[in-house]
Amino acid sequence: MSQELRAVDWTGTGLTLIDQTRLPHRTETVDVRDVDTLVDAIQRLVVRGAPAIGAAGAYGVALALIQGEREGWSEARVREAVARIREARPTAVNLMVCVDRVMTRFTEGLDAVLEEAAAVQREDVDANRAMGGYGADWLLKKAGEDRPLRILTHCNTGALATAGWGTALGVIRELHARGRLEVVYADETRPLLQGSRLTAWELVQEGIPHYVQADAAAAGTVLRGEVDAAIVGADRIAANGDTANKVGTVGVALACAYAGIPFLVAAPTTTVDLSTPTGDGIHIELRGEDEVLEWAGVRTAPAESRGHNPAFDVTPGRLVTGLVTERGVLEVSAGELPGDRLR
Amino acid sequence: MSQELRAVDWTGTGLTLIDQTRLPHRTETVDVRDVDTLVDAIQRLVVRGAPAIGAAGAYGVALALIQGEREGWSEARVREAVARIREARPTAVNLMVCVDRVMTRFTEGLDAVLEEAAAVQREDVDANRAMGGYGADWLLKKAGEDRPLRILTHCNTGALATAGWGTALGVIRELHARGRLEVVYADETRPLLQGSRLTAWELVQEGIPHYVQADAAAAGTVLRGEVDAAIVGADRIAANGDTANKVGTVGVALACAYAGIPFLVAAPTTTVDLSTPTGDGIHIELRGEDEVLEWAGVRTAPAESRGHNPAFDVTPGRLVTGLVTERGVLEVSAGELPGDRLR
Repeated sequence: MSQELRAVDWTGTGLTLIDQTRLPHRTETVDVRDVDTLVDAIQRLVVRGAPAIGAAGAYGVALALIQGEREGWSEARVREAVARIREARPTAVNLMVCVDRVMTRFTEGLDAVLEEAAAVQREDVDANRAMGGYGADWLLKKAGEDRPLRILTHCNTGALATAGWGTALGVIRELHARGRLEVVYADETRPLLQGSRLTAWELVQEGIPHYVQADAAAAGTVLRGEVDAAIVGADRIAANGDTANKVGTVGVALACAYAGIPFLVAAPTTTVDLSTPTGDGIHIELRGEDEVLEWAGVRTAPAESRGHNPAFDVTPGRLVTGLVTERGVLEVSAGELPGDRLR
Repeated sequence: MSQELRAVDWTGTGLTLIDQTRLPHRTETVDVRDVDTLVDAIQRLVVRGAPAIGAAGAYGVALALIQGEREGWSEARVREAVARIREARPTAVNLMVCVDRVMTRFTEGLDAVLEEAAAVQREDVDANRAMGGYGADWLLKKAGEDRPLRILTHCNTGALATAGWGTALGVIRELHARGRLEVVYADETRPLLQGSRLTAWELVQEGIPHYVQADAAAAGTVLRGEVDAAIVGADRIAANGDTANKVGTVGVALACAYAGIPFLVAAPTTTVDLSTPTGDGIHIELRGEDEVLEWAGVRTAPAESRGHNPAFDVTPGRLVTGLVTERGVLEVSAGELPGDRLR
């Protein structure tokens, strides 16, 4: 089922998004016909995951053109609307890359824009499939010669987070397809529970055995030897391999380094931002305090407390054992830096 | 106010516990008059925190004697009831130490037992006060010469977790009392939110500026240089300094080690179990799966998902910069091992 799962789907006249804030209990979609709705959907995480946001942003250019036509906008106003889509979330680079790519065909008109957006989406699925193969090959060679693997992952990087199939979760699905996966430990991923809501939901669809655990359990699970490797996605990767990903990722990386097991990042090369030399240059989105002070609208902390809510953290490249891309695996901590290998 | 706050209070005929499952929104107490209710209160975390459980267990011996008298129990049955209290939770050593200490006066009768339990409670408060002083002195010398400190903590180690005042939170309160504390980052501490519910509540009572953050944010907060030191409590410390504490602690320790900032454990010497050579010998309590799969009784993960819910983890002694006890600070990672210094 999940091979056909489309978090982001162009219907011919608009964009249909699976409302990821409603999963796992309700599978609802949102029909997006205007730019405001799209920007809101990106900011509220109706659609999330760097590659999925990228695909949504790519189609967003078409949406802006159609809305502009319908409402009689000037070209400047259409471009301004596209700029708002492009900046709806600050950390993921795919959104900007995908919007910019589609905008190279802006002056050719709607058909060209739609053709380019479809190519963005198709190429992302192809890239995910390639990553799945490279990542599974690498893991089986390094850690899985003798028995099925136990893999830890953080946040959601599956079909919901991409144009289809998945990045880190794509590698996990490939291992499962090859009969070489024992179990997945899915960090629940507070504050918004993309792990327990979305990753677990995708794993259930695939029939993959898994445990959901508190994010705080991840380091102990790794140190007790309960997993063979961890694999996560990325929102932006600097030239030196420093990787911005969902908050909590660097804690997993530190535990893997201490335990001496592989820590992999799976992401398409569009996630690598060669113009950013190190992670210090990556802007970390601070989201609303209520996400950590409340639960489903009910306050859990005292009324007087403040919240600190960085949505991402930066894992130093020296902790990244392997970066799985659609072109192969870079052994970053061993010195294969994206800035050298991907220019 | 919190100096008078008593999580565990002997009323003359029974035990009154603040129901910590209800905080921060409701301050309710539970009157405990029989052993079953006490064991249930310990297991449901109505009372939690290793020293507070120890004090509750100490008074539990008196409770067993009174109930036995009331219900005509044999001595063997009273002793069996005490054994059930002693084993109500497996990881914290204080509970066993405190029950055993009070049991040395069991044959002297109720008055002697109550006297010993009161001594356990009084000495815990005294120990916490001493720890507060030693810990604050050490931190100010190592990290706080020039400006007020920014401290990260995990779980709750305050007056609620002890017989009064607090262990790690006692050090934080001492820093605040000296005007040398800038802000506290309190990890929310999933799955049961002792950080956002209890630590934040105590910090509000004290007027201490603080942020609540997701546990997954802790490592990034440390690596970005937003805190000067972390300080936590302990449930059991092995002779080599390996420390069992609330799940998530070892992730904080790994981040501090990577960032080169102090990671302190504050715990009375009764927490040190010299009969346990290393952390490998510490039994880690696995709690119910629903704690990570549900929220306030509402399922968040898919119905088909399993949960992995270790309540504690073990931080290797080599990551413990300082162990703050009522006798002073042991620099564990520098080789001052509890097994050498506290025998």
